[in-house]
Amino acid sequence: MAYFDAASAAPLHSVARQALLASLDEGWADPARLYREGRRARMLLDAAREAAAEAVGCRADELVFTSSGTRAVHAGIAGALAGRRRVGRHLIVSAVEHSSVLHSADVHEAAGGSVSQVAVDRAGSVDPAAYAHALREDTALACLQSANHEVGTEQPVAAVAELCRRAGVPLLVDAAQSLGWGPVDGDWSLLTASAHKWGGPSGVGLLVVRKGVRFSAQGPVDERESGRAPGFENLPAIVAAAASLRAVRAEAAAEAARLRELTERIRARVPRLVPDVEVVGHPVRRLPGVVTFSCLYVDGEALLHELDREGFSVSSGSSCTSSTLTPSHVLRAMGVLSEGNVRVSLPAGAAEEDVERFLEVLPGTVAAVREKLGAPTAAAVAREEDVLVVDSLGKRCPIPVIELAKVIGDVPVGGLVRVLSDDEAARLDIPAWCEMRNQEYVGEEPADRGTAYVVRRVV
Amino acid sequence: MAYFDAASAAPLHSVARQALLASLDEGWADPARLYREGRRARMLLDAAREAAAEAVGCRADELVFTSSGTRAVHAGIAGALAGRRRVGRHLIVSAVEHSSVLHSADVHEAAGGSVSQVAVDRAGSVDPAAYAHALREDTALACLQSANHEVGTEQPVAAVAELCRRAGVPLLVDAAQSLGWGPVDGDWSLLTASAHKWGGPSGVGLLVVRKGVRFSAQGPVDERESGRAPGFENLPAIVAAAASLRAVRAEAAAEAARLRELTERIRARVPRLVPDVEVVGHPVRRLPGVVTFSCLYVDGEALLHELDREGFSVSSGSSCTSSTLTPSHVLRAMGVLSEGNVRVSLPAGAAEEDVERFLEVLPGTVAAVREKLGAPTAAAVAREEDVLVVDSLGKRCPIPVIELAKVIGDVPVGGLVRVLSDDEAARLDIPAWCEMRNQEYVGEEPADRGTAYVVRRVV
Repeated sequence: MAYFDAASAAPLHSVARQALLASLDEGWADPARLYREGRRARMLLDAAREAAAEAVGCRADELVFTSSGTRAVHAGIAGALAGRRRVGRHLIVSAVEHSSVLHSADVHEAAGGSVSQVAVDRAGSVDPAAYAHALREDTALACLQSANHEVGTEQPVAAVAELCRRAGVPLLVDAAQSLGWGPVDGDWSLLTASAHKWGGPSGVGLLVVRKGVRFSAQGPVDERESGRAPGFENLPAIVAAAASLRAVRAEAAAEAARLRELTERIRARVPRLVPDVEVVGHPVRRLPGVVTFSCLYVDGEALLHELDREGFSVSSGSSCTSSTLTPSHVLRAMGVLSEGNVRVSLPAGAAEEDVERFLEVLPGTVAAVREKLGAPTAAAVAREEDVLVVDSLGKRCPIPVIELAKVIGDVPVGGLVRVLSDDEAARLDIPAWCEMRNQEYVGEEPADRGTAYVVRRVV
Repeated sequence: MAYFDAASAAPLHSVARQALLASLDEGWADPARLYREGRRARMLLDAAREAAAEAVGCRADELVFTSSGTRAVHAGIAGALAGRRRVGRHLIVSAVEHSSVLHSADVHEAAGGSVSQVAVDRAGSVDPAAYAHALREDTALACLQSANHEVGTEQPVAAVAELCRRAGVPLLVDAAQSLGWGPVDGDWSLLTASAHKWGGPSGVGLLVVRKGVRFSAQGPVDERESGRAPGFENLPAIVAAAASLRAVRAEAAAEAARLRELTERIRARVPRLVPDVEVVGHPVRRLPGVVTFSCLYVDGEALLHELDREGFSVSSGSSCTSSTLTPSHVLRAMGVLSEGNVRVSLPAGAAEEDVERFLEVLPGTVAAVREKLGAPTAAAVAREEDVLVVDSLGKRCPIPVIELAKVIGDVPVGGLVRVLSDDEAARLDIPAWCEMRNQEYVGEEPADRGTAYVVRRVV
């Protein structure tokens, strides 16, 4: 039994559980009341707000608790757009935002606003220059996730925030996937997050609005949470959320390194173990625990079912619509294969042996699904002798790419070329070459020196 | 230590606590996922929905879980208004609805809709005929609470629902205060409730939309909860909410009778123990655990503070704005005294001895606050010999009122007249007479036969 879907919901952290239990007894009363139970609830709420604000890196009076990350996004976008309505009604989002952001954008557009979607590259990254290009006189708000929920790619938030700041446009950062790992860098204006992504309980989101940001809460509000999140505070869960955020942060550096090594194994070995697989997401600028790949000729639901039978809980396609298994908007925006998509997102504490067993089980599982579907026989896995190694260490681009192009005809179709390079540019150029030449970029692997970029000959 | 503010938030029921603990381990995963943890979460969610629907008296697919009762009200009103936008944009609410309803009405009005407020009588009751009168060709929705949150008065929901049904207008019932005691009678169309009012956890509300009611969810939505409540489901709390609703219902009949007797003691004795007190709310058609009274010449905040020092947690003024202690819109709509207002709302299991001690402590507390405030010396509490008893048993109205009017001059100013009557009309007529003649209607007390209506001579 291995739960590898932390990007959907992390199991409750032990500190969250303890804090929740303690505050069930201390924190059930209305914090707006003047009597002792109310004052006690108020103290717990204030302390939770201080702790969460410290973890975010903001003032306590800039942070309110919402009932979910989704609610935080909806309220944050609607409030920021309304607060700057005099400036204009133009909203910028990336094409790979969480559905809560895109749904908000849809509502804005339906109400007469305009929306620009900033495209991403094949790794799922936005280019800050594209945000700069999208900014207009009438731009009321820009939104950018800190890291993508489906492929783990980290976005250049600080750079985009700086560009927005110069243009006088607030940037809202959806930090749902990253806040447990650390604060969001840069001079952002609004931030949202979700406790159950970091091991806190469900039922708690964060909405941070920096002082000085024009904000006008929309819809009916009340006196709770500075008028930004109506309804009785879910206090025991809020206390648990704040306590667990501190706890996961204390463990974040060590756990990030450990998980990063485990996901690197998956990134590197899946393409060698399974034919016709595309590992997607940025190979370096990525969340520690997330790795996503797509398998040609595989039905995502069938693969999930088989993996579940083998004891692995993973996600497929869009994280928000996986019950219907519609194609993921993220994978489409990246222009990568979306069929047979598997997202492995390791929770804190994920066991190495579970990852190893996953790698053992996966090839047979994929093969079985392909066979059931009567898929065309995939190119056979290249034998060791079909791997050709190009040593481009110490050589600058475009040499590694040129050397790759020279040798690709020397391996049979289905065979592999490993390009060893220590030039950072190769990381972008080799996949780009594959795209242009219709060859398959399998992925990268750590090497003794530099990185090995693996390419499979397709044509 | 006695917590008498269950109408704000009830302490967590032991069944809620147990269910919450159990589902922290079983119900943290995403119920939209296909793997085992997701399926387990889905089963818990489905079972909770079935249980809640059974308690409400609706189909499971008519009920969604929201993040609070307030959210349920906001979503319910907005969705019902939008669903019937072609019919018109007229909304009917009572003047004594919870602030979440009134805030929704404000937003609707600000967006160009029209709102009619139906007035209440001095007991806080709406007259069904007034709803009938308010219904128009362009009425999209009517709202009526099942029982008032501040004074406990139960509303004639079934009668109003019938009138609305005949007019083809959906009725939304805010059942936050009553759902723990029993299902809402009548042919209503939408219903909302809040788990922490019945001893469930915070973070859970219910929104029921009957099949056939036109409903168009507003704002950004997602695929969760039938598209009516976006954001990750707060599953452990939902499970606890449903389990505790069943549990409180099993105890409801016996506990209602017990609490009704305790609040009847307060209703009857406070006016005898404390001078210049008005007990408000309907004397008979009322929630079992709620009793509200107002003390002339008393500052509500100071009184709450003194009662808190004595170990009693009660509420004052509007239950929704008590942190600011603005005058309650409910008491104003009723036309009753709002200064020095105290709402006692007994939680299930409230101890008789705590109620007795409250009655012991209250007179001195009120007197101390009055003295501190330098209030004009209140009329002294009538001595026993200043009480004049009129026996109108077996006599029909208007005889009891006539006999009262004959003898009021026989007691000194500040003295009391007790009118014994078994005619139901006296319950309305005697207070009405007091209003007209500027005499003080102190309240009613159970008598050996019939009821004693107590009047203090003022002029």
